Amino acid sequence: MAGSAEVVILGAGPAGLMLGNLLLRSGIDCVVLERASREHVQQRARAGFLAPHTAALLARHGLDEGLRKRGQEHSVCEFRTEDGRFRLDYRLLGKGEPHTVYPQHELVTDLVGLFLGAGGRIHFDTEVLDVTGVEGPRPSVTVRDADGRSAHWRARYVAACDGRHGAGRRALPPGAVRRRHRDHGVSWLGLLAEAPPSLDAVGYATHPRGFAGHMARSPEVTRYYLQCTRGTEVDDWSEERVWDELDLRMRAEEFGPLRRGRIIQRAVVDFESDVLEPLRHGALFLVGDAASLISPSAAKGANLAVLEADILARALADDLLHGDAEGLDRYSERCLEHIWRAQEFSHWMIQLLHRVPGPDGSTSPFQEGLRRARLKALRSSRTQQDWFAENYVGV
Amino acid sequence: MAGSAEVVILGAGPAGLMLGNLLLRSGIDCVVLERASREHVQQRARAGFLAPHTAALLARHGLDEGLRKRGQEHSVCEFRTEDGRFRLDYRLLGKGEPHTVYPQHELVTDLVGLFLGAGGRIHFDTEVLDVTGVEGPRPSVTVRDADGRSAHWRARYVAACDGRHGAGRRALPPGAVRRRHRDHGVSWLGLLAEAPPSLDAVGYATHPRGFAGHMARSPEVTRYYLQCTRGTEVDDWSEERVWDELDLRMRAEEFGPLRRGRIIQRAVVDFESDVLEPLRHGALFLVGDAASLISPSAAKGANLAVLEADILARALADDLLHGDAEGLDRYSERCLEHIWRAQEFSHWMIQLLHRVPGPDGSTSPFQEGLRRARLKALRSSRTQQDWFAENYVGV
Repeated sequence: MAGSAEVVILGAGPAGLMLGNLLLRSGIDCVVLERASREHVQQRARAGFLAPHTAALLARHGLDEGLRKRGQEHSVCEFRTEDGRFRLDYRLLGKGEPHTVYPQHELVTDLVGLFLGAGGRIHFDTEVLDVTGVEGPRPSVTVRDADGRSAHWRARYVAACDGRHGAGRRALPPGAVRRRHRDHGVSWLGLLAEAPPSLDAVGYATHPRGFAGHMARSPEVTRYYLQCTRGTEVDDWSEERVWDELDLRMRAEEFGPLRRGRIIQRAVVDFESDVLEPLRHGALFLVGDAASLISPSAAKGANLAVLEADILARALADDLLHGDAEGLDRYSERCLEHIWRAQEFSHWMIQLLHRVPGPDGSTSPFQEGLRRARLKALRSSRTQQDWFAENYVGV
Repeated sequence: MAGSAEVVILGAGPAGLMLGNLLLRSGIDCVVLERASREHVQQRARAGFLAPHTAALLARHGLDEGLRKRGQEHSVCEFRTEDGRFRLDYRLLGKGEPHTVYPQHELVTDLVGLFLGAGGRIHFDTEVLDVTGVEGPRPSVTVRDADGRSAHWRARYVAACDGRHGAGRRALPPGAVRRRHRDHGVSWLGLLAEAPPSLDAVGYATHPRGFAGHMARSPEVTRYYLQCTRGTEVDDWSEERVWDELDLRMRAEEFGPLRRGRIIQRAVVDFESDVLEPLRHGALFLVGDAASLISPSAAKGANLAVLEADILARALADDLLHGDAEGLDRYSERCLEHIWRAQEFSHWMIQLLHRVPGPDGSTSPFQEGLRRARLKALRSSRTQQDWFAENYVGV
């Protein structure tokens, strides 16, 4: 098997599918290559907080039917801290914009259906082995399909939407792109519980034992997070231990116990961030997690991916349809502005919500004092709240 | 010599003199003990940015004659960065409040004169050797005067306004008070130049070689700051080297050269912060730098000192005149709210303006990316600017 397309897109996550749909709508020939199966891609549980910009972009391109039907508007955070509880309704703050809660696997399912329905080509179960020739006029993508057969795809441009460990990043020659990296020293145990939400808000709890988080996902399923020691094993976290720890940190004694249920998923996430600069090497463009890994503390990952896909889709259309390469030349610079802004806010959120251990594993009491002051300012200062709201929903 | 007073105040800086004046106005008997001479105290060059709260407090108590005559309203910051220049007039942002620029030694001179004029007692050239009995009803302060004679002062309360190395802190028994400490890893070479200001604004320059700052002090004298390597010697900084480095970092080529003059003062400041908790031990109260050392990056030190002196003066009056001890019981908690808020903003400013070296002396490119994003947000987001203005002039 072999083929060609103007744009070969690596990866069928939000970045790749968004890019594919937008290119198709501009009449640009493209193909999406995805290592996993369609079923797997459509079931991968990820975050589900869509920024207003993301929802508006989906609406503008008629990609929002599912979102309109099943998305839930959300705008309240409840903070439970060492210094008391407070709530912020960010629809009433900053620019007055809410999030739309729509699980990422549903968005992916919609985008796959819309792409295929409009005649788009996706090859699932197709592993990208190699990307070559990106410095020349005709890059080539070597793949292996589900039956183990190799094939080559020829393209004008390659969009790497295949994450931090994907073939896109691997195709970068040494020294072509700088990687700015930060290990935040914080880890989360991410949990999915077959239990109804316990709060009508996103819950952020800070506690001497570490952060705990609560995020409604559906009437039957709730996401919880527990800050945990780096290197913790999921097997160490029995159902009972998880719920007891959540009740403790969310202050069940004071605010009522959580609604318990079966824990159907456990995973540890180490908070790491990186930013690649620049986001283009020849004909290869980095999008989404391939461009920048961002910690989940502010739910920016998918929203950045969609924003970058939009910037790239317009730049590719300018180039391929009108011969105007300026958008492609400026792609990296434009995206990096948004990426660094999101990284900065995400970092602020990490430091707001976590006891961040230092190199020796202990938490500095001075840093803890700053953190509590930050939370108190967020509780009491309208200016701080407006700033928070604007950054929390922005990309 | 021996004496007694209801309140013995250690130190004739802004904290001690403000406290003394306020107590005197409430009819409370007090004495100020100061190690240095009157001349020395009245000439010590320090910062001169008074917050609106500070100016209002001085006015309310009729302590602002000098300030009204010679203070200059100031409200413009000019940022010169890797990504261009911008100005913020914070009278037009946040709560719309300016600073009053009034050199600290002039404020101190005013407060000494007002205190003595109203019958207050100050003993200059008087070194405090020891503070004892603060856990009992009648603490004692042992001093040595200019002639080397010892004496004891008896008091109901002792206010330690004598800085981070003063007798007040030394009188705390081990374990009575926790000290939260942070070495920020940044140092400034502080300079006083016999040269007119070069900008009609406070100038903050960020540069690959480090921060540079410009602060007008009078039509003839300007303060400059250069971020320098920890351990630098002032003797390494010739006049020529200073001006060349300032021109480079302030981007003279682009924005015009600085107006040069004789450098009449050079001093290195290592950025350190600490916060003591609680700020009371028995009859001993910590005020100003004795309570919390704050880095000079946001000019909060003197303003916090004056705020704390006001809180303590009112609490002492409630106790000594009306037998109501609640204010004294809450002194520590109330001040710590303000102190931690100021520390948090000060820390934000440090990270906004400096390449902060890590433990190995190098600057993380990821941290640099966050810093530039923070500066760009300050340049472009009105919400961020309002937040900045509120915190920059607030205490």
